[in-house]
Amino acid sequence: MTTELRTHAQRASERIPPIALPYVSERARKALDLVEKFVEEECIPADAVYQQQIGKTVEERFNSHPPIMEELKQRAREYGLWNMFLPRNHFKEGAGFSNVEYGLMAEILGKSRIASEATNCAAPDTGNMEVLAKYGNAAQKKQWLEPLLEGKIRSAFLMTEPNVASSDATNIELAVHQEGNEWVLNGQKWWSSGAGDPRCTIYLVMAKSDPNNADKYKQQSVVLVPHDAPGITIHRMLSVFGYDDAPHGHGHITFKNVRVPIGNMVLGAGRGFEIIQGRLGPGRIHHAMRSVGAAEKALDLFVARLNDPNKVAFGKMLNEHGVMLDRLARARIDIDAARLIVLNAAIKIDLSNAKGALKEIAEAKVLVPKTLLETIDMAIQAYGAAGVCQDTPLANMYANGRTMRIVDGPDEVHLQQLGKAENKRGQQVLKYYKTQDANVERVLKSHGLGKVDPLQLNRESGKGGSRL
Amino acid sequence: MTTELRTHAQRASERIPPIALPYVSERARKALDLVEKFVEEECIPADAVYQQQIGKTVEERFNSHPPIMEELKQRAREYGLWNMFLPRNHFKEGAGFSNVEYGLMAEILGKSRIASEATNCAAPDTGNMEVLAKYGNAAQKKQWLEPLLEGKIRSAFLMTEPNVASSDATNIELAVHQEGNEWVLNGQKWWSSGAGDPRCTIYLVMAKSDPNNADKYKQQSVVLVPHDAPGITIHRMLSVFGYDDAPHGHGHITFKNVRVPIGNMVLGAGRGFEIIQGRLGPGRIHHAMRSVGAAEKALDLFVARLNDPNKVAFGKMLNEHGVMLDRLARARIDIDAARLIVLNAAIKIDLSNAKGALKEIAEAKVLVPKTLLETIDMAIQAYGAAGVCQDTPLANMYANGRTMRIVDGPDEVHLQQLGKAENKRGQQVLKYYKTQDANVERVLKSHGLGKVDPLQLNRESGKGGSRL
Amino acid sequence: MTTELRTHAQRASERIPPIALPYVSERARKALDLVEKFVEEECIPADAVYQQQIGKTVEERFNSHPPIMEELKQRAREYGLWNMFLPRNHFKEGAGFSNVEYGLMAEILGKSRIASEATNCAAPDTGNMEVLAKYGNAAQKKQWLEPLLEGKIRSAFLMTEPNVASSDATNIELAVHQEGNEWVLNGQKWWSSGAGDPRCTIYLVMAKSDPNNADKYKQQSVVLVPHDAPGITIHRMLSVFGYDDAPHGHGHITFKNVRVPIGNMVLGAGRGFEIIQGRLGPGRIHHAMRSVGAAEKALDLFVARLNDPNKVAFGKMLNEHGVMLDRLARARIDIDAARLIVLNAAIKIDLSNAKGALKEIAEAKVLVPKTLLETIDMAIQAYGAAGVCQDTPLANMYANGRTMRIVDGPDEVHLQQLGKAENKRGQQVLKYYKTQDANVERVLKSHGLGKVDPLQLNRESGKGGSRL
Amino acid sequence: MTTELRTHAQRASERIPPIALPYVSERARKALDLVEKFVEEECIPADAVYQQQIGKTVEERFNSHPPIMEELKQRAREYGLWNMFLPRNHFKEGAGFSNVEYGLMAEILGKSRIASEATNCAAPDTGNMEVLAKYGNAAQKKQWLEPLLEGKIRSAFLMTEPNVASSDATNIELAVHQEGNEWVLNGQKWWSSGAGDPRCTIYLVMAKSDPNNADKYKQQSVVLVPHDAPGITIHRMLSVFGYDDAPHGHGHITFKNVRVPIGNMVLGAGRGFEIIQGRLGPGRIHHAMRSVGAAEKALDLFVARLNDPNKVAFGKMLNEHGVMLDRLARARIDIDAARLIVLNAAIKIDLSNAKGALKEIAEAKVLVPKTLLETIDMAIQAYGAAGVCQDTPLANMYANGRTMRIVDGPDEVHLQQLGKAENKRGQQVLKYYKTQDANVERVLKSHGLGKVDPLQLNRESGKGGSRL
Repeated sequence: MTTELRTHAQRASERIPPIALPYVSERARKALDLVEKFVEEECIPADAVYQQQIGKTVEERFNSHPPIMEELKQRAREYGLWNMFLPRNHFKEGAGFSNVEYGLMAEILGKSRIASEATNCAAPDTGNMEVLAKYGNAAQKKQWLEPLLEGKIRSAFLMTEPNVASSDATNIELAVHQEGNEWVLNGQKWWSSGAGDPRCTIYLVMAKSDPNNADKYKQQSVVLVPHDAPGITIHRMLSVFGYDDAPHGHGHITFKNVRVPIGNMVLGAGRGFEIIQGRLGPGRIHHAMRSVGAAEKALDLFVARLNDPNKVAFGKMLNEHGVMLDRLARARIDIDAARLIVLNAAIKIDLSNAKGALKEIAEAKVLVPKTLLETIDMAIQAYGAAGVCQDTPLANMYANGRTMRIVDGPDEVHLQQLGKAENKRGQQVLKYYKTQDANVERVLKSHGLGKVDPLQLNRESGKGGSRL
Repeated sequence: MTTELRTHAQRASERIPPIALPYVSERARKALDLVEKFVEEECIPADAVYQQQIGKTVEERFNSHPPIMEELKQRAREYGLWNMFLPRNHFKEGAGFSNVEYGLMAEILGKSRIASEATNCAAPDTGNMEVLAKYGNAAQKKQWLEPLLEGKIRSAFLMTEPNVASSDATNIELAVHQEGNEWVLNGQKWWSSGAGDPRCTIYLVMAKSDPNNADKYKQQSVVLVPHDAPGITIHRMLSVFGYDDAPHGHGHITFKNVRVPIGNMVLGAGRGFEIIQGRLGPGRIHHAMRSVGAAEKALDLFVARLNDPNKVAFGKMLNEHGVMLDRLARARIDIDAARLIVLNAAIKIDLSNAKGALKEIAEAKVLVPKTLLETIDMAIQAYGAAGVCQDTPLANMYANGRTMRIVDGPDEVHLQQLGKAENKRGQQVLKYYKTQDANVERVLKSHGLGKVDPLQLNRESGKGGSRL
Repeated sequence: MTTELRTHAQRASERIPPIALPYVSERARKALDLVEKFVEEECIPADAVYQQQIGKTVEERFNSHPPIMEELKQRAREYGLWNMFLPRNHFKEGAGFSNVEYGLMAEILGKSRIASEATNCAAPDTGNMEVLAKYGNAAQKKQWLEPLLEGKIRSAFLMTEPNVASSDATNIELAVHQEGNEWVLNGQKWWSSGAGDPRCTIYLVMAKSDPNNADKYKQQSVVLVPHDAPGITIHRMLSVFGYDDAPHGHGHITFKNVRVPIGNMVLGAGRGFEIIQGRLGPGRIHHAMRSVGAAEKALDLFVARLNDPNKVAFGKMLNEHGVMLDRLARARIDIDAARLIVLNAAIKIDLSNAKGALKEIAEAKVLVPKTLLETIDMAIQAYGAAGVCQDTPLANMYANGRTMRIVDGPDEVHLQQLGKAENKRGQQVLKYYKTQDANVERVLKSHGLGKVDPLQLNRESGKGGSRL
Repeated sequence: MTTELRTHAQRASERIPPIALPYVSERARKALDLVEKFVEEECIPADAVYQQQIGKTVEERFNSHPPIMEELKQRAREYGLWNMFLPRNHFKEGAGFSNVEYGLMAEILGKSRIASEATNCAAPDTGNMEVLAKYGNAAQKKQWLEPLLEGKIRSAFLMTEPNVASSDATNIELAVHQEGNEWVLNGQKWWSSGAGDPRCTIYLVMAKSDPNNADKYKQQSVVLVPHDAPGITIHRMLSVFGYDDAPHGHGHITFKNVRVPIGNMVLGAGRGFEIIQGRLGPGRIHHAMRSVGAAEKALDLFVARLNDPNKVAFGKMLNEHGVMLDRLARARIDIDAARLIVLNAAIKIDLSNAKGALKEIAEAKVLVPKTLLETIDMAIQAYGAAGVCQDTPLANMYANGRTMRIVDGPDEVHLQQLGKAENKRGQQVLKYYKTQDANVERVLKSHGLGKVDPLQLNRESGKGGSRL
């Protein structure tokens, strides 16, 4: 790789923050540099082809499979970059990296819209593969996990619904009940991401199986539903700002007496929450690190603009304007801080598991999109009108980044949970201050002193008469 | 240590962020817990005694040496906690810890106003000891470094001046010239921190020795000036918000024909910049980590207020107000991010040196005070009027924290330098985009495609006549 | 009008801020309520028809004139709402309102995407009509102003160029030179807003006529160019985030030896800056007040979401979450403040003119989009995924709002100019403090006092010996 | 007045925002310019004398009445500037100005620490005089209002208590009960502002008279308590950041069987809330406008620093640094917006009353301190270390400004109330959208259209077979 195809003087492996170095194996460092090479040399130059191969009309765009994607997948396999996301300590099916190692790769993948899919590391397949690998039975693995691992099919996770506050997942209403040896599903889902892709042939559907269960976290189940089961209608796709995200897309789907075999239940009826909670941790790390990569890309674009010799305003290049350098520095700090937060969370998952890293994951979930959006917004402003149109990727990146504050739970939900978790030490803190107050009195006394206020006055009304 | 004397369920060593763990030796972890024990059990309870022993009038307050400080220093030595700040890879005189290890300790020290001095880890002595250990000759070390390392005297670093923009250190004017075998100093300094302490007997003075040198970074020298050299007047002390920071204080000092022996020059005339640049890196890490500790303390106070059963407003305890939990969570995230930024900078220093960690140090220098001030401000608001007065340490902490955005260079200077450093890759970035543009064209062509805009129109005025 | 068709209990005229009331005539208040009625009852319900009538393909979308627009224009005339934007003190051709009166109407118009055009108050026609009315000669008025005032044709103002930093308008390069009795134009423009509309038949083109003029503000001219003059090509339209803004659109246009009659110069060669400076003031007020209306609309949508009984999350409706009420209140404050800033600017224009209100206009230009974007972003977050897709207007509003920080000069340009203007009183301020310092000394002296520092010390090294 | 004694080229009357002009009488404009003259020529130069006359020890500082204050009061009367705060439409005792007119004067008074008292317009006397004028009986007026109006005594309002969440005023506990023809008070108060002044001879005490009243807003009463009634102890004064605000001060006071005559009840037992609600509106406007004045003063200081020829950093004066100009401009915008919000609120009070202007007052209460603090903080940063010490008034101004976010109710209380008030139109908003949805359908239908989604797909699983 020549240095021309990087925006930094150092390779990706050389840019790993020193604090994270002990957690990254030599093998992972080499793979990381290969990822950078693959993304820069293969994926980014291919993006324009991909966009054109999608087509123009709505029907075309959501029925296309750009041939160049298969070319890229072939190349990725040649590079040895495939399924890097499956962490080695939990799955034998993957490429044998840890979450933090893959996290660093995901940052690089995040610089291209198509690189994640090309390396079979694209959401929502990644999470779905984790679910199937962890909770699926042999038949389910055979039928769905194997082709997913091979990149032969794609999948969707159907969770969100339009008529309830889905940020509270206990609210979901799509119903599933048993009839004979079949599960029957009725209801609707939206933001079914990936459902637009013609290769998306399997849906993991979060459904309400036991609405009267006293434990509201045991009312839900995850059912495997083939995309062509009769009764399913994809009514429309949802746009993100003005973008349709074709062919992937975000579907609004109804289920009318959709029937699947009894064996299509994952893990067991009523265990939906258990499944989604295990599913979300690493996925949030992936999203977060790709977003860090997107933020770096926005920063690159910003730097390019600052140094564009054609953009001389009021007698100075943009890189001579102090306001611009100030922003550049602040973005640099914020991105570096956000990256460390994500890497620390990934390491916590690696050292324990997603449940043990709830706090750290929530921190990453909230901090990263904020940083990303601020960085993109800064870049847009430097580009002016060019920043909001098709001539830079910034506006599209902003749209994607904006959804990061919403998907997998809006900021507000994570912040309330994080706040409550932190507040759990409330009683200990109260006790601490009580003890310290007693200690202060004790130490004062042992030194012959008592409590004295710096502005002590002790002026009594009865003593003395008029004050003037 | 009983759990009552902590605000967290876990010990300090257990709270080390996972990502930093590989850099912290078993010995350092034990020392870290000892630091926590010492600070919580000895220092914090002693603070009220210390405050009373300072006295009341200005003259008293800047001529006092509270006896309890010597008690605490004795205790610190018994704990084996002394001079932990001197990093093992550069100095043999210290306690044998790395910068990141001491950084973690500094966070805990930052919870008490007197703990740093009690362990002989207080600024500006720490930086001055580093200077003397690194650049001092044998005689200088004997006379000044030894008693400093023993905690027998204190010192000040005289740099800032009132009549120039000291944020640009080339501006300083206090003049030094040679007469016979003496250096003669004339001029003024202010913000000479520590000069109020009666034990402060040595000043390291940054002076202009060669104002006409073409290289403006070689005009300055660092001269060792005993506090009692004739011609020195401490005119007044400077307040920080309303606080006088006695007995330490911040002096406004004039030099009128002050004479010191020729041997009192450090390293050599004209080498002042070299000295201060080496001095500032670790010092900024110390400040930053103490500030992280202060932020944690503010968070503790915030949590205490949220859980105060007497503070029921509008039918709810404060911990039931969503706005409060939201703020608590955001502060948690920001503090954790700031800590990682500092630890990463400390590790970078440990792995290379301060010069190699310029970017990381600058990031910590800017990010930490911002986080600290926001956290304190949040806590003040939760306490209401109690938060701005002497009944909590918050207002005083805010005042101290506010200076952190100024001392050792204001935010603006660091941001401009950081921005310029980041912008250095400008030409590489431009070249990158040029190459990628060519690659895109090549790949399009190889797939039989050309550049097409998604909103291509090609409407020519000559072709077709009227548009309606 | 029944109260059902308002989101407020009070009519628009009743919601005028008290401070602005003296500037709004009885006639304008009645018109304002009519505008509200027209927008709510006619325009907003018609929007879906308008959108469908635009068509689907790029070619269709930028060649359509939705018939419903002519219906609405007919209705607007029946309401007596036509050309309200032309201020009465400068133009006889308008509806006889002041800038502040029309500003209040523009706020209401800003709640609909089509209401401004329906009342012939849409940009860029408004500014172009002002230019022609103010600077056009009789022939130009006859040919272009009359049909514009009648709403029979539309127009574009071609200013921005892709290859230079257009934020500094002296940079524009499109060249015009005289050949015989014709002007010949060569070069390119982009962000030619409105150029997509098939009824857009006249371009006001800012061109460089005298590139060597020593006064760089006299190098430009405004030339009237019919859209069908040979040599013009509309290459493509520019998107705003993912939206194409059809049929209006933003064109990227080239001029190749485009020839127009010598009489098509406005005001005279070299007077381009004079023209655009007069043009921009009121236009910024219009944009700003429509943006205030958009912010109110976002707030309405936010309120609707807070009160949606289906959106119960974690056991509470959104309007019971303190964080939401906090945001609602802050948005209310910020919108009200922004409105006052705009109205004050409009009044300043009415009392003097745009040049006399430079500061006030710049304040509105910067403050309003910031407020608008923050409000929309808050609403999007409350809606979650529904907020970024086609099911609410929020994402589209955000895209439009985002451009407001760029069009007519980016924030940064206005802030630098505003900062410089404020800084002009620098010398007076310095003199003031010098005088006051002298006054303080005088008054101290007259009371038998001298300057004393609160922390005065005057400790001299020579006097006294050891400090301990 | 020569122009040297202003920081602006224009007089105060010429700087009134155009939008407010119709509400300011010619007489008020003249008075406004006189206020500016008095503040600049008399008060600001006298401040240093005032500070020195206060004294040094705590006892001295809270027992002093600087003689210069009586000189200034005499001068104020000569200028005809006395009791301007009492609005003409409610009180005959004042100077005959409206709230908005006095608001503009309060802005100028806010530039000096002593000008408000010098013109007998200082809190808390102003609110107390309003209470006595509005609710006091003849005897109370004779005894307390008359000397207050004459500036012969001062007063305090005792409301806040240390042991409860006083932000919810129903929580106050200090008890009052009747014994014979006396009221007996027991309990404690703090933040009794003004209680330090030796001339403060009357306390208005909010006390709980009927703790069991079912209506918790009828449990409180306001009792007039002479400062020398036996049983009162001023234990200590409270600092604000490090400042003691002497001689005024903020007292922590206990009441032990304090007895006052039965006639010392204001308005009647149980009417305390009624009194404080009427009291707070105009007082908040006064605070807010003084704070706007303080913000302008901070801006003046900022401008002075930017133009200080001695402060050349990195080769440029501060006024050449774009970051500084950017901040200056943003502060200018924010201050101007905040001023308009306050003036609009004052006008709303003038047009109706404080109750009718609840929303507008709350907006001012929240927005102004935020703006003030941001402006001061910006100025501090420009001054560096000089900004936090006694050499500029900035740190002290920050401390005062910080309390503005707390006194008279913290931000959070006002924001929640404002949010709830805004949310009251929730049902109307829901109904509006329902109606508009129906209208859209109707209009679509009337144009032969139905609802069509822009990304409509209608892809049914049963129809068609495999998607690939």
